Amino acid sequence: MKNFDFYNPTHIAFGKDRIADLAQLVPATAKVLILVGGASAEKTGTLAQVREALGARTHSTFSGIEPNPSFETAMKAVEMVRAQGFDFLLAVGGGSVIDATKFIAAAVPFEGDAWDILLKFGGNITQALPFGVVLTLPATGSEMNHGAVITRHALGAKLPFRSRHVYPQFAILDPTKTYTLPAKQLANGVVDAFVHTVEQYLTYPVNAPVQDRFAEGLLQTLIEIGPRLLSASEPDYDDRANLVWTATLALNGLIGAGVPQDWATHMIGHELTAKYNIDHARTLAVVLPAMLNERRAQKHDKLLQYGQRVWGIQSGSDEQRISAAIEATRDFFERMGLPTRLSAYGLGQDAVDLVLAQLQAHGMTQLGEHGDVSLAVSRRVLEAAL
Amino acid sequence: MKNFDFYNPTHIAFGKDRIADLAQLVPATAKVLILVGGASAEKTGTLAQVREALGARTHSTFSGIEPNPSFETAMKAVEMVRAQGFDFLLAVGGGSVIDATKFIAAAVPFEGDAWDILLKFGGNITQALPFGVVLTLPATGSEMNHGAVITRHALGAKLPFRSRHVYPQFAILDPTKTYTLPAKQLANGVVDAFVHTVEQYLTYPVNAPVQDRFAEGLLQTLIEIGPRLLSASEPDYDDRANLVWTATLALNGLIGAGVPQDWATHMIGHELTAKYNIDHARTLAVVLPAMLNERRAQKHDKLLQYGQRVWGIQSGSDEQRISAAIEATRDFFERMGLPTRLSAYGLGQDAVDLVLAQLQAHGMTQLGEHGDVSLAVSRRVLEAAL
Repeated sequence: MKNFDFYNPTHIAFGKDRIADLAQLVPATAKVLILVGGASAEKTGTLAQVREALGARTHSTFSGIEPNPSFETAMKAVEMVRAQGFDFLLAVGGGSVIDATKFIAAAVPFEGDAWDILLKFGGNITQALPFGVVLTLPATGSEMNHGAVITRHALGAKLPFRSRHVYPQFAILDPTKTYTLPAKQLANGVVDAFVHTVEQYLTYPVNAPVQDRFAEGLLQTLIEIGPRLLSASEPDYDDRANLVWTATLALNGLIGAGVPQDWATHMIGHELTAKYNIDHARTLAVVLPAMLNERRAQKHDKLLQYGQRVWGIQSGSDEQRISAAIEATRDFFERMGLPTRLSAYGLGQDAVDLVLAQLQAHGMTQLGEHGDVSLAVSRRVLEAAL
Repeated sequence: MKNFDFYNPTHIAFGKDRIADLAQLVPATAKVLILVGGASAEKTGTLAQVREALGARTHSTFSGIEPNPSFETAMKAVEMVRAQGFDFLLAVGGGSVIDATKFIAAAVPFEGDAWDILLKFGGNITQALPFGVVLTLPATGSEMNHGAVITRHALGAKLPFRSRHVYPQFAILDPTKTYTLPAKQLANGVVDAFVHTVEQYLTYPVNAPVQDRFAEGLLQTLIEIGPRLLSASEPDYDDRANLVWTATLALNGLIGAGVPQDWATHMIGHELTAKYNIDHARTLAVVLPAMLNERRAQKHDKLLQYGQRVWGIQSGSDEQRISAAIEATRDFFERMGLPTRLSAYGLGQDAVDLVLAQLQAHGMTQLGEHGDVSLAVSRRVLEAAL
C-alpha cells in the first residue's frame, strides 16, 4: 500500500425527510444564497421544503446553473454574493450545481482573477465561504468531496480544481429526491459512479485488499441495481438509496486512498464534453472500454481480478478472460442505454483530431497511473472507439 | 437501508515516516501533553521521534495509562492539564491510551464531577480539548472515531461514552510502529477488528449491499492476513499496513451507517474484562461463537450470507451451513491463539452468575439489534461458552 492522507469532514444526513434537518445544519444567523440549476427544484417542491426548513433566515435563490457549469454563470453568482453579503451557500441539485457552488465559495473571497483558481487547479485557494448540499441527482460524488470541474466556454476549456477548503459542511442525501429523475439521468449516474470506481481500482496491484474489495463492492452493487433502476415501473426506495450511497462512496476519497489512480478516461471525456456537449457519463462510456483494451498489458493483473470478482469470469486464457471482462463492461454500459462508440454521436476521425488538439493544448500528454498515456495512446483509444 | 448520519472529520496520515508530519499537524503555538501507556513508546524510539517533530513547542509527557484505562488514572492527567495549562493532547499508543485521551480531553473543561460524563454516555459533553493520535497498536479503531470506554475500579464498572467533540483531529498510522508488538497483541488486534465488523454486519438484512460488501471485505482481509501475521519470521510491511487500515475502518462509523447493530457480545465482554481482567479481544473470542449460535434464528439470513461470502460455505442445509459458519469463526479465533471457552481462563458457573449480576447492575438487560438479549439469553450464551 502507498502512503496516503485521508480527510473528509462532510457530514452526511442520509434518508427520507432529512431536508427538515437544514434547520439545525445551517447556522441560525446565516444569510443564505440557494443555488439551483433549472426549474425542476422549484417544480418538484424541493425548494419549498428547503425554504421552509430555513425558517426565519434571510435567503435568496440563484437559478440557472447549467450542466457542465460555466465560469461565466458562476461569476454572476459571485457578484451577487459579494453585492448582497451572503455568508452561506446552499447547493440544491446534482454535481453541476455542487461543483459551481464550490467554485463560487472559493471565488468570493479570492483576490485577483478567479480564473487563476482553475489555472492552478485550486492550489491557490486559502479560504472559502461555508456551504451545504441538498442532493437531487446522484452521480458525481461532489456532495462529499473537495473537487469540482468548471467549463469556460470562451476558451473551450473544462478544468478541474480541488482544495480542502471546499468540502461541503454537510450533504443531505434523500433518495426520494431522485424519484422525479428521467431514466437517462439515472443511467448516467450509474455509469458515472462505475467509472469513478474503475479509475481508482483498475490500475496495478499494490497489495491493498481492502481498497480492492470496497471498489468491487461498489461495482457489484451498481451492476445489481442499474438494470432494475431502468426497468422499475415505480421507484424502489432501497435501489435509489443504494445508488445514492454508492455514487457518494465512489468518489469521496476512500477507495482511492493508498492506491494508484488512473483518470485518463476522465481527461479525454472532459474534452469530448467541452467540444461536443455530450453528457459527462456518456463520454466515459465511450472512452473506457477502448482505454481498457488499449492498456490491457499494463492493467493485466487487475483486469483479471476485476473479471473474476466483479463479473464471475473464471475460465479461458488470461487474454480471453481480460477480453471478456472488457466486453462485459461495454455490454453493461449499452444495457444502461449509454452508447460505447463515437459514431453513436455522429463523430468520426475529424473529432479524434480535434480532441487530440485539445488534450495537447491542456497539457494532457502523460495521463494514467503510469503517466504513459501519451497523445499517441489517446489517439489509438479514440480511434478504437469510433 | 435505514436513515443515518455519517460524520468523521479525523485526518488520517498513513504510511512510513509520517511522525515527522506532527510538525505541520499540531498547531505551532500548542502547549502539548503527550500521553503514553508503559515504557514501550520510550524504548522503541517512538517518543524521541515525536519530540523531535514537535520541535520548539512546549511539551511534557504523562505516562502510565493502563490497558482498559481507568477513570482514576485519567483524572490524574486531567489535574496535570488543568494545573499546567496544556492546550493540546497527543495520544501515543493504542486504544487504551486513545480512549483515556478522549476522556481527558472532555473532562478538562467539564464542570462538575467528570464521572457524570460516563453516567450520561457522553451526552453532556459540550466541548473538549483538541487532540491527535500516533497509533502504535492497531485494534480498537479509536484513532478514527468518537467513542471510548473507561473503567472505574472502585465501582467495578467499565462504561462507554461518545461525543462528536472527541474525534481526534488527526491520526498518524505508521504500520512500521507495529513491528515491535508481541504476537499476542497482533492476534488480539485481528480478532478485535473482526468482531467490531461482525457486530455491525451479522444482524438482519436491510438491503444495504454496499455496507455488507464493505464489511465482508474487512473480514476476508483479516482472515487472509491474520495467520500470516503470526507465522511471519520478519514483519511484512503490507500485511501490517492492511491490518492497521482494516482495524481503523472496522470502527470508524462507515460500515455501521444505515444498518442495524448488535454489540451484545461487546457488552458481555466488557463485564468479563472488568471482573477478571481478560484482554478485551479475548473476551470477544469467548462470547461471539456462543452468541451467534444462541441467536441463529434471529440472524439466520445474514449467517447464511456470511458463511457463503466470507467462508465460501455453499453446501448443506441452511442449519448445517450456519453451524459451519459459526465453527469457522471459532476455529479462526483459536488459530489466532485466542481461546473460545471460559474454561481456558479457569472460569466456571460462578463466573456466569457474577457476570450476570454485573449486567443487571449496569442495565444491560435488552441487548442486541432487536433488544431481545435479556439476562436469560446472556446466561445461556455464557453457559454455552463454559
